[in-house]
Amino acid sequence: MEFTRRRVRLTVAYDGTAYHGWQIQDNANSIEAELTRAVKQVTGEEAEIIGASRTDAGVHAYGNIAVFDTVSPIPPEKMCFALNKALPEDIRILRSDQVPPEWHPRRQTCRKTYEYRIRFGSIPVPTERLYAHYVHHPVDPSRMREAAASLTGEHDFASFCAAGSQASTTVRTVYSIEICDAPGQVTIRVCGNGFLYNMVRILAGTLLDVGMGRKEPKDMTAILEGKDRRQAGPTLPAKGLFLMGYEYGEEAAAE
Amino acid sequence: MEFTRRRVRLTVAYDGTAYHGWQIQDNANSIEAELTRAVKQVTGEEAEIIGASRTDAGVHAYGNIAVFDTVSPIPPEKMCFALNKALPEDIRILRSDQVPPEWHPRRQTCRKTYEYRIRFGSIPVPTERLYAHYVHHPVDPSRMREAAASLTGEHDFASFCAAGSQASTTVRTVYSIEICDAPGQVTIRVCGNGFLYNMVRILAGTLLDVGMGRKEPKDMTAILEGKDRRQAGPTLPAKGLFLMGYEYGEEAAAE
Repeated sequence: MEFTRRRVRLTVAYDGTAYHGWQIQDNANSIEAELTRAVKQVTGEEAEIIGASRTDAGVHAYGNIAVFDTVSPIPPEKMCFALNKALPEDIRILRSDQVPPEWHPRRQTCRKTYEYRIRFGSIPVPTERLYAHYVHHPVDPSRMREAAASLTGEHDFASFCAAGSQASTTVRTVYSIEICDAPGQVTIRVCGNGFLYNMVRILAGTLLDVGMGRKEPKDMTAILEGKDRRQAGPTLPAKGLFLMGYEYGEEAAAE
Repeated sequence: MEFTRRRVRLTVAYDGTAYHGWQIQDNANSIEAELTRAVKQVTGEEAEIIGASRTDAGVHAYGNIAVFDTVSPIPPEKMCFALNKALPEDIRILRSDQVPPEWHPRRQTCRKTYEYRIRFGSIPVPTERLYAHYVHHPVDPSRMREAAASLTGEHDFASFCAAGSQASTTVRTVYSIEICDAPGQVTIRVCGNGFLYNMVRILAGTLLDVGMGRKEPKDMTAILEGKDRRQAGPTLPAKGLFLMGYEYGEEAAAE
């Protein structure tokens, strides 16, 4: 019996601690390599995995997106269960479904949400050392909220882009930045139509500078207008960054 | 210059994942062994570390207590900084202070608080796999709250004690059990004057059975009265258990 070729979409969560990022590379473990191996084990096929976001080493995800093509008879919506049996515990497929053959996760209108998690206080909590950025200095979330308000909307985010980026334009739209706080904790939740290389980690570093009193909320406008990476704050470490998920404008209908 | 011998108390937080529990043993890493090594490195002394709670392998702590005696000139309240430099990142001393020479962390009237963290839903979240017990089945926190109400107070907790315990009495006082819930999460927060071996993990397993509909809230009274381990629920895994802290009745005054 022959099965037709179809494109399966995966929603992927992972703990990035043990991986050198999403992308396959020689002599280093990656999320993409684990997925490729698991698809081979389940379907017998050498599939190409196309990821929505090629996250850096140490970055975590609750909802990255990937697609691959297969002729496997496993129903697309059951593929998640088969793959989870073949994957290590620190990578989980939350959902699988079928999308049209031309559906590409990096060529869709989407809203993408990231969280950056910060902990502060006298001593870092050991169980959170791999899942948040720790600073000793107290952080004032109300100052960060005020600064964040200047950063939402469509802007040229050149000041918030790592040097050497290949992006054709540095204009992006940030729909919202929420600052969620609890004792000793601040989480920056950013939603946008796309982000430049390291943009969320630089936004977080700049907002944290404001929260610690090293920059003023009113400085944000000048930093944006300066279009100069050196005016923004530091790139915070990967381990505090969580790719929370994607919402696609036109939800792809299953064939 | 000679320094007098004094007893230093430590408040210790750790990620239990990489350790075979608190207690020193041959051929396995332990929190006590790391502390003994760090004290040697900092003071040059072979100190005996006396812990308040000898937690099992995989159990985490935000506030375990330990004491040791030293003639080191380092002020007791600064000892935490020196020890943290000598300890791995997954063990942190949150505080250090001086206590009277006879102060023993297991011979004080105290209130001890544990949390047991449960996650439920279709798929476990990878970044929480080492810090919570995951069940696929939905959990109803309001049923757990009703069951917990029967367990507070002074009771014979023989049904909630692992077989082979050496305790002279199985009567303990549970001051409170809070059930804190959020979407896909339930945390059981128990405060008592002491706990039998595996008692919190068995309490959590019994309350989780109620939350999943396998037991009824009204069954709790009969389970307590039965004084039979087989009537209670399962012992949940160590990784969901957090020793949150101690409050001592008479706070020991520094000499």
